[in-house]
Amino acid sequence: MAFLSYGPVARFRAEENAVKDTPDDPLAALRTLLGDAHVLTGGDVEKFARDWTGKWRADPLAVVRPANTAEVSQVVKLAAAFDLSIVPVGGNTGLVGGTSNTGALMISLERMTTIRDIRPAAGLAVVEGGAILSDIHAAVEAQDMFFPLTFGARGSARVGGFLSTNAGGSNVVRYGPTRGLVLGIEVVLADGRILDLMSELRKDNSGYDLRDLFIGGEGTLGIITAAVLRLVPKPRHHAAALVAVRDLPASLRLLRALQSATDGAVEAFEYMPRSYMTALATHRPDLRQPFAVHDHCVMIDLGGLSRPLGDVMEAVLEAGVESGDVLDAMVAQNEAQRRLIWDMREAAAEITFTRLPIVDNDVALPLDAVAQFIDDMHAGLATLDPGADTLIVAHLGDGNVHLTVYPTDDGQLDAIREMIEGVTVSLGGSISAEHGIGLSKLTTMTRRKDPVALDVMRAIKTALDPDNRMNPGKVIPERTGGAGTPPT
Amino acid sequence: MAFLSYGPVARFRAEENAVKDTPDDPLAALRTLLGDAHVLTGGDVEKFARDWTGKWRADPLAVVRPANTAEVSQVVKLAAAFDLSIVPVGGNTGLVGGTSNTGALMISLERMTTIRDIRPAAGLAVVEGGAILSDIHAAVEAQDMFFPLTFGARGSARVGGFLSTNAGGSNVVRYGPTRGLVLGIEVVLADGRILDLMSELRKDNSGYDLRDLFIGGEGTLGIITAAVLRLVPKPRHHAAALVAVRDLPASLRLLRALQSATDGAVEAFEYMPRSYMTALATHRPDLRQPFAVHDHCVMIDLGGLSRPLGDVMEAVLEAGVESGDVLDAMVAQNEAQRRLIWDMREAAAEITFTRLPIVDNDVALPLDAVAQFIDDMHAGLATLDPGADTLIVAHLGDGNVHLTVYPTDDGQLDAIREMIEGVTVSLGGSISAEHGIGLSKLTTMTRRKDPVALDVMRAIKTALDPDNRMNPGKVIPERTGGAGTPPT
Repeated sequence: MAFLSYGPVARFRAEENAVKDTPDDPLAALRTLLGDAHVLTGGDVEKFARDWTGKWRADPLAVVRPANTAEVSQVVKLAAAFDLSIVPVGGNTGLVGGTSNTGALMISLERMTTIRDIRPAAGLAVVEGGAILSDIHAAVEAQDMFFPLTFGARGSARVGGFLSTNAGGSNVVRYGPTRGLVLGIEVVLADGRILDLMSELRKDNSGYDLRDLFIGGEGTLGIITAAVLRLVPKPRHHAAALVAVRDLPASLRLLRALQSATDGAVEAFEYMPRSYMTALATHRPDLRQPFAVHDHCVMIDLGGLSRPLGDVMEAVLEAGVESGDVLDAMVAQNEAQRRLIWDMREAAAEITFTRLPIVDNDVALPLDAVAQFIDDMHAGLATLDPGADTLIVAHLGDGNVHLTVYPTDDGQLDAIREMIEGVTVSLGGSISAEHGIGLSKLTTMTRRKDPVALDVMRAIKTALDPDNRMNPGKVIPERTGGAGTPPT
Repeated sequence: MAFLSYGPVARFRAEENAVKDTPDDPLAALRTLLGDAHVLTGGDVEKFARDWTGKWRADPLAVVRPANTAEVSQVVKLAAAFDLSIVPVGGNTGLVGGTSNTGALMISLERMTTIRDIRPAAGLAVVEGGAILSDIHAAVEAQDMFFPLTFGARGSARVGGFLSTNAGGSNVVRYGPTRGLVLGIEVVLADGRILDLMSELRKDNSGYDLRDLFIGGEGTLGIITAAVLRLVPKPRHHAAALVAVRDLPASLRLLRALQSATDGAVEAFEYMPRSYMTALATHRPDLRQPFAVHDHCVMIDLGGLSRPLGDVMEAVLEAGVESGDVLDAMVAQNEAQRRLIWDMREAAAEITFTRLPIVDNDVALPLDAVAQFIDDMHAGLATLDPGADTLIVAHLGDGNVHLTVYPTDDGQLDAIREMIEGVTVSLGGSISAEHGIGLSKLTTMTRRKDPVALDVMRAIKTALDPDNRMNPGKVIPERTGGAGTPPT
């Protein structure tokens, strides 16, 4: 997937701005550039080598840790001189094999963690590419502001990683997808040049929208080394609840009623049906569930500025009880109970990857097609592998369903995957809502993405990275298809 | 700016999917393809030839009116065969010369106006590229939904035009910029292929974000022939006011107080200082102003779902009176008064273009830098042309300032433009917030945009339109700079 071949040293020496008097060995050159302590090899790369899910491995030439954007640029130029591939790595909590490689130079921004500026009056924060999401949360909340992007891995996910992945999370229902939460970025391109898109503006209409190519580019077009993040006022009042509902349509009615009653203050609306709550009871008995497992359950969090929302929550839930949509409910009475409800939802990742083999899906559907998707998927599964288990948890407010299938054996893996893809696409859905493509969805991209769209992506990739040096082999399948079938 | 030369007919005949038995004359070929009634020449092109501001002219070979996306595709292929440039045109209400051309084939989507589908439960509408914005508003509001994008030209602006322009408008403070209001698009590419990005999803992470390249691409990368628009629930309660305030910082305090008191229900927050209100009194005496002209004035509209907001508005304004931030105020008591306040704001375009010469600017600034911008700009102007008049109106909630300078003569036009650019960029602003680049800002792009960003734009343009056929000469300045200085 990556290419390790030593380019002619003459080419490197001629390179503009390159380090002088460099040895013929890339590792020696990197050590000269960054210092020995920041060129990791052997056992030192282990924490970058194995991804979080255990499905993907990296066997890089080295992991380097530049101190600033200028050093990232120099590393990229040096990699070009030695004809090395480059794979940027953040917190290594991605789910699609996005950092898997053999022989590439991995670039970690873990030394570039500075939160450079927080300006509440302008509603923005300026951060370096290695800053950790939860550190950003803490810093801006100390100034009574809020950066809405959040997900389970926030304690390790870094700016460059979660933006390159276009990570989504639980607050999209209120604050919109990730691209709308980013005002500007700085990128080191494949030729080492630094692209300055550090806009501090909500509206900026000066030429093509380059920013949103790199967000979600999974490191295949450049390395995001800094960003300007959009902040919103920190909600002052929260109201969280765990609610058993009659069925999925009842959930959507409840969502609409809450949106209407709170002027859109629904911060999270997460679907956790029987399969999820049962697995939660097994794997996390410490998270004590307030009522028996029902077929359909949602967790809700409201966030308001102007008024406490507990009364509104209770009034809407009471109306739901009367209409028969709500079967049982627990409204958090304090922050500890609210945290418990969130912990139940955020245990999803650890619960999901407990068994093998699995077919994990991260699909998005139009809101009015989610119930049909689940029905059709179960029908398909009953034919292919009636003994298979499923686990569903969904950002229901966004139509984003995380569906995991545990087949009875390895034989049906691809048939199940293809069936789920087919159901998704037939309902107008997407084969990736927020996890991205990486290596794991390349076959799916070949099968399901508009071929013209794939061609346009290839044209852009070639235009920006003609030597295919940046995270090669990810996101865009080979024209022949078939590459990158996941090992599982 | 455009190229008219007849390519070899053999190439056209070999073109895949091309019309057979075509004459050697492009107009004859187009008439065969679309019918005589839909290939306009001579006097019939007049309404497309002169843009709204009167600053830019088009002298096209012809204007064609395809009936559907397949015909758009065939027209583009035919244009390639005859080596014609292509300039798409919508309502022709742009402000930057985006459709100006000589000898190009203009494509109007005015026959493609169907609103194909409105699905409130999924929060979306599917529309053709020629649909008019105000028609979309009316259709979705009839189903109790709301498409938030709005601006003065909504009665003529068409989907393909306002998306290609990345038009902004008055509701960005609440609902965000245009890209966040579009779920999917369909595009005819430079080679005539149809790119299907008609996603119906809020979250879709399946490869590069191609959609947002074409939105704001100003027709230089392809023609937007259809779109999936994101709808929100229609606000049930409005509260509008015209408010005289002490100064700009007082305006921003008022904005924050209203956001906080209404959970972000501020739909519009428009700054209309003395220069604007005075011009309004002169040009639109029919719009009777409720109080004397003050130095600083804002118009406000709140939109709520759960509760009437008049009381909240009055409470916040009363607190403003007590603190001295608010000097006078008129709260609309009925829809007619609310409409009057909006008409005062939306008269901006007709007021602005009443005199020549002008230097019109559409800059965006970080919110905390708007006051400094106005001070610095006036200081610069006092040196360059002390007799010059200015007119300011701003989407203050977005930091988007429309600043028009009327110099005493033509001699200082570019010096004034350059001074304003300099002030804008020194404060972290953008030289275009929402009008785009077209021809009018090419020199400014050369002077002020990151050269690396310009190179990346050129690489993408070349990758997607290697023959430079789509709206050539717009958005991206020539590498040597200097092209496209506006005539004024």
